[in-house]
Amino acid sequence: MAEERPSHELFFDRWLHLYASRTVSMRSSEVRDLLAVCERPDIIAMAAGAPYTKALNMDKMARIVAEVMKKNGPEALQYGSSEGFEPLRAWLTEFMADEDVECTPDDIVITDGSQQGLELAAKIFINPGDTVITEAPSYVGALNAFLSYEANIIQVPCDDNGLKVDKVAERLAACKKKGIQVKFIYTVSNFQNPSGVTMSLARRKKLVKLAREFDTIIIEDAAYRRLSFEDTPVVSLKSLDPDNVVYLGTFSKIISPGLRVGWLIAPRPIRERIIFAKQAADLCSSSLTQRVVEKYFRETDVKTHLKRLIAIYIKRRDMMLNACEEFFPRGVKWTTPKGGFFVWVTLPDYIDTTNMLAKAIQEKVAYVPGKAFYADGSGRNCMRLNYSFMKEKEIREGVRRLAEVVEQEMELYRSLKR
Amino acid sequence: MAEERPSHELFFDRWLHLYASRTVSMRSSEVRDLLAVCERPDIIAMAAGAPYTKALNMDKMARIVAEVMKKNGPEALQYGSSEGFEPLRAWLTEFMADEDVECTPDDIVITDGSQQGLELAAKIFINPGDTVITEAPSYVGALNAFLSYEANIIQVPCDDNGLKVDKVAERLAACKKKGIQVKFIYTVSNFQNPSGVTMSLARRKKLVKLAREFDTIIIEDAAYRRLSFEDTPVVSLKSLDPDNVVYLGTFSKIISPGLRVGWLIAPRPIRERIIFAKQAADLCSSSLTQRVVEKYFRETDVKTHLKRLIAIYIKRRDMMLNACEEFFPRGVKWTTPKGGFFVWVTLPDYIDTTNMLAKAIQEKVAYVPGKAFYADGSGRNCMRLNYSFMKEKEIREGVRRLAEVVEQEMELYRSLKR
Repeated sequence: MAEERPSHELFFDRWLHLYASRTVSMRSSEVRDLLAVCERPDIIAMAAGAPYTKALNMDKMARIVAEVMKKNGPEALQYGSSEGFEPLRAWLTEFMADEDVECTPDDIVITDGSQQGLELAAKIFINPGDTVITEAPSYVGALNAFLSYEANIIQVPCDDNGLKVDKVAERLAACKKKGIQVKFIYTVSNFQNPSGVTMSLARRKKLVKLAREFDTIIIEDAAYRRLSFEDTPVVSLKSLDPDNVVYLGTFSKIISPGLRVGWLIAPRPIRERIIFAKQAADLCSSSLTQRVVEKYFRETDVKTHLKRLIAIYIKRRDMMLNACEEFFPRGVKWTTPKGGFFVWVTLPDYIDTTNMLAKAIQEKVAYVPGKAFYADGSGRNCMRLNYSFMKEKEIREGVRRLAEVVEQEMELYRSLKR
Repeated sequence: MAEERPSHELFFDRWLHLYASRTVSMRSSEVRDLLAVCERPDIIAMAAGAPYTKALNMDKMARIVAEVMKKNGPEALQYGSSEGFEPLRAWLTEFMADEDVECTPDDIVITDGSQQGLELAAKIFINPGDTVITEAPSYVGALNAFLSYEANIIQVPCDDNGLKVDKVAERLAACKKKGIQVKFIYTVSNFQNPSGVTMSLARRKKLVKLAREFDTIIIEDAAYRRLSFEDTPVVSLKSLDPDNVVYLGTFSKIISPGLRVGWLIAPRPIRERIIFAKQAADLCSSSLTQRVVEKYFRETDVKTHLKRLIAIYIKRRDMMLNACEEFFPRGVKWTTPKGGFFVWVTLPDYIDTTNMLAKAIQEKVAYVPGKAFYADGSGRNCMRLNYSFMKEKEIREGVRRLAEVVEQEMELYRSLKR
């Protein structure tokens, strides 16, 4: 279509002198760029961090949205408050009590998914060049939000017990020595995106102490927390130190990302600033989708709802782990997630998963290259596999195709070394 | 509730050393702070910039949302692309053709209302201290978005023909002389918020030339454009210079702000950066609400739809203007909007509408003080009245109450002068 409009200045950017400096560090999410490819029906896409929305009862959802419209149409279609629909925030206080987080509706701000929570937190905390600490690897959307405010991102490695908190202590001390105030420590504390690992209780206790010691705060991204495959997930950082943790939650993984409803719980002075930022960002979240979420959970036993979803994801996780075991050659390692959506695969270090992606797509399988989850370009021999979204019967075949591509890469390397 | 939780640090902000500099210039929208008061049923609120959502057919809306859910539930509940639902963008190209704006779906980004368009534009263009030009008065949400990125805002006065473009030329020249690059010129070009005035065609032609001459761009906020009380609204700035205008549209005023769906049309290189900023901000807009808007307008003759709304607002505008004529004392002036939602009232300059508001609320009527629409605290003797939202039968009574408060203020002044 563009070809028909030669008058448009498609290739020459004559506005370069107008852009803000921050646009230089803004980057496109490699995950999202992949989505276009992943929509092709012949491709087995293990790329998106998307839930299995087909698991929801669409007749029930249709009834709920219709009822919201019939009973409260004018309000559902009107502006709402910037902090969010009060009955939803009230319901969230009950939901959070299950996690031993005590809060009132006035501690909560409704956001457009937890992504907006990340954006708003970045906006109120990050000056250009400011230092923040995240996990290595870390959620690509968080990195992009922080980079868009020109953060200096220090990424600290994880192991099977999550973020290596001793290393965090070292980095905090090193920053302090240089006179650098770390603005916050960001962690996806349960079933991390992308690695699938969970921070241990011992490390959590250390981390909240460390944050106090170095006068910084923790931003806890709990996007996957309720999708635990074990009975009792480790307690949240928020419950360990309510007054020094900003908690980000989302309905995206437990009901629907298409509704764009998440929440943020923060100490009052921080919350006030988040609300100012929210007003500038979009005035308020959708009154309709907030009401739909509220009505859905008022009518639904949340534990039964979660149990059903968890059973679906456990089955899928097991299918993927079994396929990894069956197909990946020696020298390939992967994590064993106890919740959430992701398996993190580490290949021999001579393989570059960004380069390998084109071949994988030729073989009709897609993943997210590890590089996306690092601010400094590392993670090149890693990749994130998602088991939550594709068709169940495609999981084994997807991993089989991918393993074949990996095998070829390894074979190529061996033949070159000969 | 807060009182029950003494452990919370409500009053002492121990994170001051962590906030970004931009939080200093971030402010709460006075309009939004008012909303809490305005929700009291005994108050006649002429404050909110809200449409009359009760005008919509709720049975039809309920049917549409239910059908979207039944036919495309899993997709409506899933993540969508950052640029927005393609069929909606395709429909928008038809809608924009009516305004003589030629565009393709690839020129458009769907935003969470036009407020998000303002936020994203501010983010990609404004470095701290950068200069932008807006109307005086200007939309409070735009000022807040620009201030949240630490813009230096130059406000140029309007008269009955809208922005005084000659004054814009003077300011642009003065900036150039000082070596200052103006980043953009922001205008609500039709039925301006808050003044209700519309920029004349002659001034539009001059303005697009000026922007080119001074290597800057125009951000045209067309929120009220389609709510024209006359047959043919003045052509848009976008249609006069498509390659140098960023156009912001919204469904908030013509269907519903509660859906949070707006759009932005920009030259490609600018659009690319807006999409990066959108990804960091919230990944994508709601798939559900985008589909609802698309389905609604695919099934509805948009001209008939708009005609119905316009008839409602014309009646209300007339009722308000008649009441102003009937009740306001001599020395009070007001604008005559030819579209949109607002009448801008100018009181004698010794009256401070911010101070007067408390008295007005005592008399059970509310408005937005003029100061909100200026970055520098001027506009003190002005106020914005809205006729779109309250009950029709309350318009006359609202203005009567307000006029009484004004009368008292004038009487007080006269008695002090004696």
